[in-house]
Amino acid sequence: MARYKAILAYDGTQFFGFQRQAKERTIQGEFEAGLRKIGWQEKSVLAAGRTDTGVHAIGQVVVFDLEWKHSLIALQEALNTNLPGDIAVRAVDLVHPSFHPRFDATARKYRYQIFCEPVRNPLRERFAWRIWPLLHIRSLDELARQLEGTFDFVAFGTSPVPDGSTIRTIFDANWSCDGSDFFFEITGTAFLYRMVRRIVHFQVEVAHGKQKVTKLSEYLSGGVSGSVQGLAPANGLILTEVIYS
Amino acid sequence: MARYKAILAYDGTQFFGFQRQAKERTIQGEFEAGLRKIGWQEKSVLAAGRTDTGVHAIGQVVVFDLEWKHSLIALQEALNTNLPGDIAVRAVDLVHPSFHPRFDATARKYRYQIFCEPVRNPLRERFAWRIWPLLHIRSLDELARQLEGTFDFVAFGTSPVPDGSTIRTIFDANWSCDGSDFFFEITGTAFLYRMVRRIVHFQVEVAHGKQKVTKLSEYLSGGVSGSVQGLAPANGLILTEVIYS
Repeated sequence: MARYKAILAYDGTQFFGFQRQAKERTIQGEFEAGLRKIGWQEKSVLAAGRTDTGVHAIGQVVVFDLEWKHSLIALQEALNTNLPGDIAVRAVDLVHPSFHPRFDATARKYRYQIFCEPVRNPLRERFAWRIWPLLHIRSLDELARQLEGTFDFVAFGTSPVPDGSTIRTIFDANWSCDGSDFFFEITGTAFLYRMVRRIVHFQVEVAHGKQKVTKLSEYLSGGVSGSVQGLAPANGLILTEVIYS
Repeated sequence: MARYKAILAYDGTQFFGFQRQAKERTIQGEFEAGLRKIGWQEKSVLAAGRTDTGVHAIGQVVVFDLEWKHSLIALQEALNTNLPGDIAVRAVDLVHPSFHPRFDATARKYRYQIFCEPVRNPLRERFAWRIWPLLHIRSLDELARQLEGTFDFVAFGTSPVPDGSTIRTIFDANWSCDGSDFFFEITGTAFLYRMVRRIVHFQVEVAHGKQKVTKLSEYLSGGVSGSVQGLAPANGLILTEVIYS
């Protein structure tokens, strides 16, 4: 028996989130079903984090203990053969038996995709949020930079554990664009529940003149009570990487 | 009553092609159902061309006669409200009552999307064909240029009408790439049944050394009998534009 780390990509559209549920289709449920087909008999895999319903990933990290006598490539191929089309194992590696994908992670990276068009576009909306009117990259990027540092993000989400801290460190937050496509990338130690989607929605409201630019620093410094309202849709969000030291 | 031209975009994944069928979900069927909800009572819409099962569009052209007392923008919005999420009306225009989207078209433009990766990628495979090993852009583009001109494409498809001509004129055929993403764009008067997908598959086989480079000109000059084998998957193909003089 050895411990393996798999990097998963998934199209979250047809899942009720990552975490296994008794009656709903989840990424964990499908992945464990695929693992069982190649001889896995444990109770549960470990994951770096739980993505919400509709959220995608290209860098989710899942760990499992398995008796496997063939190569790593063969393990990856066996898994990909036994997983549905909307989940794929991008890489497999051997890790130390004590390795934990959540506790050992030093940072997570998310990407939020937006496209600016006045009309619905079925070829793009699966993986991006449609926004109109057009956003302006410079003001957005300046806003994002204010998120970098250690702050109490209580206005932007709740702790995943009861009474847990709402203080988080953001290493990098930036916007880039390509024509009418906008990408928000954020790297931090960890994130509160729905924090990235609340931050994106808030920034878009500022960009559209519905919130004052100064409001962000007020929230981050604890100068305003209450929480921000609104949530960017799940389909624009992608867990891109989990970083280990 | 006036004649309107709508430009449609659709994600073809969940449709049995464009053309209406009694029991299957089709783009024409869904579009006509949407039209009926805003008062349309005719028998059938007219379209520039029929896309196959799984093929996408951002520039399909559909024409219909309708009694409509509001603005064009209001018509577009009414249609988009009444169409499912995987079909959208990108633009609406008034046209002459004799306008025909197929007979009046002078050219069609298709795009075929490929990405080169060794492992499945659920975030990309909906709209692109995954290929491995990596393609080389220069040799592909040189090959595509040979398609430009007027040739008998009998080896690459069948006429959509019985005993119809298999001679077609290609105005432009080229490959471009962005990292490991490859795009084939082809513009021609009209296309034989499955012609673009056969041409793409053939070019990829040449690129992977499974067909000789010289084979293409032999097929185009009638120097080889028989048809090319193999078909690139439908999900990589997008009807991007129908051109009118």
